[in-house]
Amino acid sequence: MQLDITSNNSQPINQTIKKGKPVQYGKNMIGNGEFIVIAGPCSIENQNQFLNTSQFVKNHGAAILRGGIWKLRTHADSFQGLGVESFEMIKKIKTELGLTLCSEVTDVRQIEWVEDVIDMIQVGSRNMHNYELLKELGKTKKPILLKRGFAALVDEWIKAADYIIRGGNENVILCERGIRTFETSTRNTLDLNAVVYLKENTNFPVIVDPSHAVGVRHLVSPLALASAAAGADGIIVEVHPNPKEALSDGMQALTFDDFEKLMLNINGILKVMNRELTVCKPN
Amino acid sequence: MQLDITSNNSQPINQTIKKGKPVQYGKNMIGNGEFIVIAGPCSIENQNQFLNTSQFVKNHGAAILRGGIWKLRTHADSFQGLGVESFEMIKKIKTELGLTLCSEVTDVRQIEWVEDVIDMIQVGSRNMHNYELLKELGKTKKPILLKRGFAALVDEWIKAADYIIRGGNENVILCERGIRTFETSTRNTLDLNAVVYLKENTNFPVIVDPSHAVGVRHLVSPLALASAAAGADGIIVEVHPNPKEALSDGMQALTFDDFEKLMLNINGILKVMNRELTVCKPN
Amino acid sequence: MQLDITSNNSQPINQTIKKGKPVQYGKNMIGNGEFIVIAGPCSIENQNQFLNTSQFVKNHGAAILRGGIWKLRTHADSFQGLGVESFEMIKKIKTELGLTLCSEVTDVRQIEWVEDVIDMIQVGSRNMHNYELLKELGKTKKPILLKRGFAALVDEWIKAADYIIRGGNENVILCERGIRTFETSTRNTLDLNAVVYLKENTNFPVIVDPSHAVGVRHLVSPLALASAAAGADGIIVEVHPNPKEALSDGMQALTFDDFEKLMLNINGILKVMNRELTVCKPN
Amino acid sequence: MQLDITSNNSQPINQTIKKGKPVQYGKNMIGNGEFIVIAGPCSIENQNQFLNTSQFVKNHGAAILRGGIWKLRTHADSFQGLGVESFEMIKKIKTELGLTLCSEVTDVRQIEWVEDVIDMIQVGSRNMHNYELLKELGKTKKPILLKRGFAALVDEWIKAADYIIRGGNENVILCERGIRTFETSTRNTLDLNAVVYLKENTNFPVIVDPSHAVGVRHLVSPLALASAAAGADGIIVEVHPNPKEALSDGMQALTFDDFEKLMLNINGILKVMNRELTVCKPN
Repeated sequence: MQLDITSNNSQPINQTIKKGKPVQYGKNMIGNGEFIVIAGPCSIENQNQFLNTSQFVKNHGAAILRGGIWKLRTHADSFQGLGVESFEMIKKIKTELGLTLCSEVTDVRQIEWVEDVIDMIQVGSRNMHNYELLKELGKTKKPILLKRGFAALVDEWIKAADYIIRGGNENVILCERGIRTFETSTRNTLDLNAVVYLKENTNFPVIVDPSHAVGVRHLVSPLALASAAAGADGIIVEVHPNPKEALSDGMQALTFDDFEKLMLNINGILKVMNRELTVCKPN
Repeated sequence: MQLDITSNNSQPINQTIKKGKPVQYGKNMIGNGEFIVIAGPCSIENQNQFLNTSQFVKNHGAAILRGGIWKLRTHADSFQGLGVESFEMIKKIKTELGLTLCSEVTDVRQIEWVEDVIDMIQVGSRNMHNYELLKELGKTKKPILLKRGFAALVDEWIKAADYIIRGGNENVILCERGIRTFETSTRNTLDLNAVVYLKENTNFPVIVDPSHAVGVRHLVSPLALASAAAGADGIIVEVHPNPKEALSDGMQALTFDDFEKLMLNINGILKVMNRELTVCKPN
Repeated sequence: MQLDITSNNSQPINQTIKKGKPVQYGKNMIGNGEFIVIAGPCSIENQNQFLNTSQFVKNHGAAILRGGIWKLRTHADSFQGLGVESFEMIKKIKTELGLTLCSEVTDVRQIEWVEDVIDMIQVGSRNMHNYELLKELGKTKKPILLKRGFAALVDEWIKAADYIIRGGNENVILCERGIRTFETSTRNTLDLNAVVYLKENTNFPVIVDPSHAVGVRHLVSPLALASAAAGADGIIVEVHPNPKEALSDGMQALTFDDFEKLMLNINGILKVMNRELTVCKPN
Repeated sequence: MQLDITSNNSQPINQTIKKGKPVQYGKNMIGNGEFIVIAGPCSIENQNQFLNTSQFVKNHGAAILRGGIWKLRTHADSFQGLGVESFEMIKKIKTELGLTLCSEVTDVRQIEWVEDVIDMIQVGSRNMHNYELLKELGKTKKPILLKRGFAALVDEWIKAADYIIRGGNENVILCERGIRTFETSTRNTLDLNAVVYLKENTNFPVIVDPSHAVGVRHLVSPLALASAAAGADGIIVEVHPNPKEALSDGMQALTFDDFEKLMLNINGILKVMNRELTVCKPN
């Protein structure tokens, strides 16, 4: 008698068929030794906010922009993102700065709309188990940043990646963003065990989102450094020109100053680890 | 400084504005004192299996059929359901038996297809946080069986119901189906605390799915009885003519014998509680 | 490579060597079909409070008294119990009412002191992993009520019982009292899955403590009824003449009225299950 | 109505009364900027094993030895430690190498025995809630390494430290060692969120035990580096001359080679952080 549960994974994944592979992204390679920084605001709120933040994070080492177009919010009346209205503005800023955008789609119907807007498609934590969405993303060629479900086993996370890969798209990047535990002193519990486990047992690129994992600005940078020291392939962090006025997740956004200091320390740690920061090389 | 997390709910919800309401379903009322039994196979596999099971559960007290048309499976190569091909067969069996069907939609695009096939639309545990789906279901008038996310706080569950209600559809029934905890001796951990908490603090109808909560046939019936004794408004259970050959969740399906015995005991418990079993009164 | 973790228990325990056995207690047998009710205050606060409560719960069907002498409290300055000063008073009340007492020891040094004060020795949730204490209890002959650690796997709980049994004392009764999960709407999450799993796979008597599991008075009785319906061998509940003035756990103590109503419903459920309430038959 | 649960801690601890303080240890100061490495075998097994390991870790930067004398094991028949028989051997090795020992007491009765054997007393994870033990340790003057209960809230952990401090002993060092979550791919989940939270909100020295947190040798070093990068005050790691033959926790013990490489990288990271490794300066 064997329960059909996927909850035990105590034996390492078979070494002979390591899953996943480094992902080509423009002229960059993610998951092949270099360390990539994805940075920007939680939500794209307006042109000034997005342009200023993008310019700043580019100048200090970010290779890819982040910025939410549609937001999945627990409360139905929280800010839900600018949506399609922001497309022209986003494209203009990307061209001006020579950068690309990582952003989330929250509905299968959005995929076809974002062809020239979103360059790396994020699957949010709440959608990791949305297999219909994953199947549709398998039909695209774009790199997919697959966030871990906040209560997903590492094994289920890999199986979710399978939905995309079997659809024909092998460009899957895993993103650890904190899991739900009994502890409530911080927003979630960053699971670096999962990161080192995945690096040891698979070939997936694994990046870390310390902003959502901890939810408190002052604690984001130490955890970003920890992620680099643990061997992650990159980080994705929220930066805002004025976090107190952010329309979403202001509590956890780094200020420009915070980001600048973080990047100094990240570079120091990477040197110790004999690794290099990915410099943006757009197509 | 206040974290924007929704993880603390230690104070009862304001009594003066209890959320939710009993739901009219055909000529039945759910959540108003009577106890409703929804039963049938995990997946609809073929005409014989569905007809036989439906006939049997009807004869022994089920008021609504259950049966999966599309399945969300962790493994991409598990059986994913019969899909649209089964529509005519389902409609025929419903008419023949004078019963209605509770079944899950897994994609916003399915909603319009199922108008005369699914009478109560189930949102599965993995989709509780799929707010785009919930918004679309808010535009229908059908009763929605909103399963709890397997790691969702009671507070987030109520907020998910809000997405449907604010869309214009107040017919929301909550369904507790077990949560993910550290314990692995059973599939999930049935959270009857949540059931009694919701009955005390809201007006939502609350039913329990012991099959998914425990995942082992022999343990389903005792937990179904416990749910009735705790004051739930009903149960949804999986029944299969031959669980060993089921295409999904066979481990947890009740046999016909199991179901018959369960209904005897349910009736006994309801009598002690001065409650009645809902008898199917189709439109 | 096999991790030495005890966290997977997805296969039923070997049926041929079911662990545990019904426990003889005075002229009563616990775990052999009858249902036992252990009731009384969280802490023994003074003679009036303990005598009145004991008299009342005896009159309404409790077979054993409960009442804390030493308390393990999270805060160092919370009430820590009356300690040895209360021994004479306790013995007098036990004799007067012809009842026995279930109470906790929190330190190996207390065991020898309580010989004629405590008749059933409780190991609290925080001490389930205190193996030095368990070994010492193995040297006594008294029945041990072994509460589940609030984050203990069922498998670890059984292994903790082994420490007592191997010491020479087979009189172990397991007590489920709620586990720690991500959910915060109630104090803990009552795990009835564990109760039905243990009844199916072991011969241990299993009783339930709904008071600590849920932490809110109005929710205790529905969960006590659920425990009876699920097949538990008994319950242990907190009752206080005036919960608002209790020195510990007042939030979750039943009033006399609550207890009287609960016992009426318990009797009804037991009748449906063809089980009898254990009547106190002191030595 | 307010539940007496200690489960919500979403607001930072009042900044004006930060708890805890750096701890003087011989001529070293722990928690005051330097980084301390405590290393040695899980259990002290025999003279050769303990001497060789101690010599090696001393030569490569460990400032304090670790080594279990009594072991708390889930299984009653696992190796329980050498106990008092090993005292003379331990004292001899400490003197020979000029080092001190951090080791666990598992029973209040052991405290008086270990006066000149154990220099830093460890409270194991299973005993964090054993308040009688904590009270007794409050009467000593020795530094206490208080491991976090594997399911303890940060808030409960601080309250456990209070039991020691109120007894008169302010020398409390907190040790994060992984928490129990739903994830089973590794032994526990290392909670670096808690480490950065404590460093931001208290003055307690906080060290990390990556060996128990992850349970797999190859994953220990990356997490040790992450702990240093996150700002922990030190690490405690298991090292064994031949892990495959270890009597306990062999799966997670570093080999001598592993430890040597780890110390090289630790030193690199500390340099980036402008911190120094504590060099052993015995009394």
